[in-house]
Amino acid sequence: MDLSSLLSGISHVNGKFIDQAQKRLDNLTKPQGSLGRLEEFAKQVVSITETAMPALDKKVVFTFAGDHGVADEGVSAFPKAVTPQMVLNFLNGGAGINVLARHAGADVVVVDIGVDYDFAGAGLKPAPTGTGGYFISRKVVSGTKNMRKGPAMTKDETAKCIQVGIELANEYAKKGYKIFGTGDMGIANTTPSSAIAAVLTGKSVEEITGRGTGINDDTWKHKVQVIKDSIALNRPNPSDAFDVLSKIGGAEIAGIAGLIIGAAANRIPVVVDGFISTAGALIAYTIEPNTKDYMFAAHMSQEVGHKAMLEKIGLRPILDLDLRLGEGTGAALAMFVIEAGTKIYKEMATFGEAGVSEKD
Amino acid sequence: MDLSSLLSGISHVNGKFIDQAQKRLDNLTKPQGSLGRLEEFAKQVVSITETAMPALDKKVVFTFAGDHGVADEGVSAFPKAVTPQMVLNFLNGGAGINVLARHAGADVVVVDIGVDYDFAGAGLKPAPTGTGGYFISRKVVSGTKNMRKGPAMTKDETAKCIQVGIELANEYAKKGYKIFGTGDMGIANTTPSSAIAAVLTGKSVEEITGRGTGINDDTWKHKVQVIKDSIALNRPNPSDAFDVLSKIGGAEIAGIAGLIIGAAANRIPVVVDGFISTAGALIAYTIEPNTKDYMFAAHMSQEVGHKAMLEKIGLRPILDLDLRLGEGTGAALAMFVIEAGTKIYKEMATFGEAGVSEKD
Repeated sequence: MDLSSLLSGISHVNGKFIDQAQKRLDNLTKPQGSLGRLEEFAKQVVSITETAMPALDKKVVFTFAGDHGVADEGVSAFPKAVTPQMVLNFLNGGAGINVLARHAGADVVVVDIGVDYDFAGAGLKPAPTGTGGYFISRKVVSGTKNMRKGPAMTKDETAKCIQVGIELANEYAKKGYKIFGTGDMGIANTTPSSAIAAVLTGKSVEEITGRGTGINDDTWKHKVQVIKDSIALNRPNPSDAFDVLSKIGGAEIAGIAGLIIGAAANRIPVVVDGFISTAGALIAYTIEPNTKDYMFAAHMSQEVGHKAMLEKIGLRPILDLDLRLGEGTGAALAMFVIEAGTKIYKEMATFGEAGVSEKD
Repeated sequence: MDLSSLLSGISHVNGKFIDQAQKRLDNLTKPQGSLGRLEEFAKQVVSITETAMPALDKKVVFTFAGDHGVADEGVSAFPKAVTPQMVLNFLNGGAGINVLARHAGADVVVVDIGVDYDFAGAGLKPAPTGTGGYFISRKVVSGTKNMRKGPAMTKDETAKCIQVGIELANEYAKKGYKIFGTGDMGIANTTPSSAIAAVLTGKSVEEITGRGTGINDDTWKHKVQVIKDSIALNRPNPSDAFDVLSKIGGAEIAGIAGLIIGAAANRIPVVVDGFISTAGALIAYTIEPNTKDYMFAAHMSQEVGHKAMLEKIGLRPILDLDLRLGEGTGAALAMFVIEAGTKIYKEMATFGEAGVSEKD
């Protein structure tokens, strides 16, 4: 299916299902509305899946990994070699996302969509690993180009990255997964994400640029200048998300945008992690605003530009734990909370079943 | 052991353990501090337990149930019969706390400390139930007296209720439980909790009185008046938590305060649920301020007076999900998040182990 017919099939969720879910919630043994956002999550999952009793037992976080030419400008606290090193850490089960996904009962799929490292040459094959993530090679670029010197990706590369995300959504929907989480790995990727945030929210670069993995004041000022230069040089069109994504984006951000579009097309709830993932979500939302109905915002990142992007889409974050790691860590935790909402909805007794008196 | 020697044994946690935990956290494969509050939770658990690698695998929520004479004043949206009806619902596994505790891997212990119903006469024996909670009978009162007409409990009843909480903490520590959650059930119990909040925070009754299970404007005004009358009649001494608790408190609130004191004495982390539980926590904190180091605030309740009590103790809530059910529902969810923090701390690879380059 081509992208435009896929997009035209993504509609608002049907309010009829929200009303049906509300009726059941109001009949459970608790004061009406007293489980707050857990009830909202249940209603949203029912309306997304159009299923009376949805189960979220099969969960997966996709951690998209890619490198960034703009790392050459010295915008990150960590060397670029850390991207492939962390991919190997994901596969060995030692990273934050592995620990939190295990805790939440979610699988981890690590997608090489743009890492500047030859995993195949190093003997790494697509496979599940013992305690870690399942490795998938869908490399579109070996790192993006330096956006301070020209477009990060070609239009064709950008379209391919989005397609990778859509295809993964299709494949994992077929495998029976019920909820997706997004995640990212890519040294320097707060830089393109901040650039996207500035262009698509209209905020100043200073307002939406943060400290990433932990840069000092001087490097922060330099990072702001690099982002300003990149926007000035490439002149991305704010009303054309593809243009923005190719000129000042990244492969993993495009993959995340594609995954979200694919999730919506498959009626699967998708939990958007933090800053980088929300840049991907904002791209998806700009391409097709109806994708918003299928999204959950996992948490409020410590990265300063996150709030503006969430507000632009109109999402309220589920958790606020001062996280700023990425990888899908917040998404894994939030999935557990969303699942709590669906369990309340499905497993609680009604007033009638329990013989409990209703409100006077 | 008498209460005063128990209290004198509750000290601040030892900063040495926080420093040791910080060293390990800073060496894990993530930017320093990037897992935010999850790292704080890990440090707090390490310092409470004084254990290098603490496990929170055995979890229990105590749901203390009690009735309130002040319910006769018409301050609640639900009839008083709902308290024992909900106790039976807890034992059958159909209540919110059952669903969320199962989801978080916690056991539920339902403690009849003051319900105005003869469970034994109705054939209910202390026992574990199939899918629900374990029932424990430690009845001190059959409902409190109406605080608008005199003290809710005698000093002796109050001391006994606190002792029940302490003894449960001792028993469940011996059984190998690693983290406790607090919970409550008792029609009308936001009324004594609001009274406690007003007296111990110094805020006006209007500021800290909420809608409970869902009362209308007229009933809210009446509730405020009932609380004002009760405080005016009983004149509780704000510097004497026992006096406050006996005059305008409740059996389940006293049990929760005792459980928190007992948790601290046993060096066990205790997760304080919402509004009612925080009234109990504020009593425990007023009796012995060092108990604060052992507390986690599960969530920010929708009940309006909650924030003032959390601020008085100095606790930042973990979750903000618009909950206002009580029972320990927020505590069950928050336990899962705290456990996520300890797992990160224990299970993530260090930079050396994973062969990942450190910060430039």
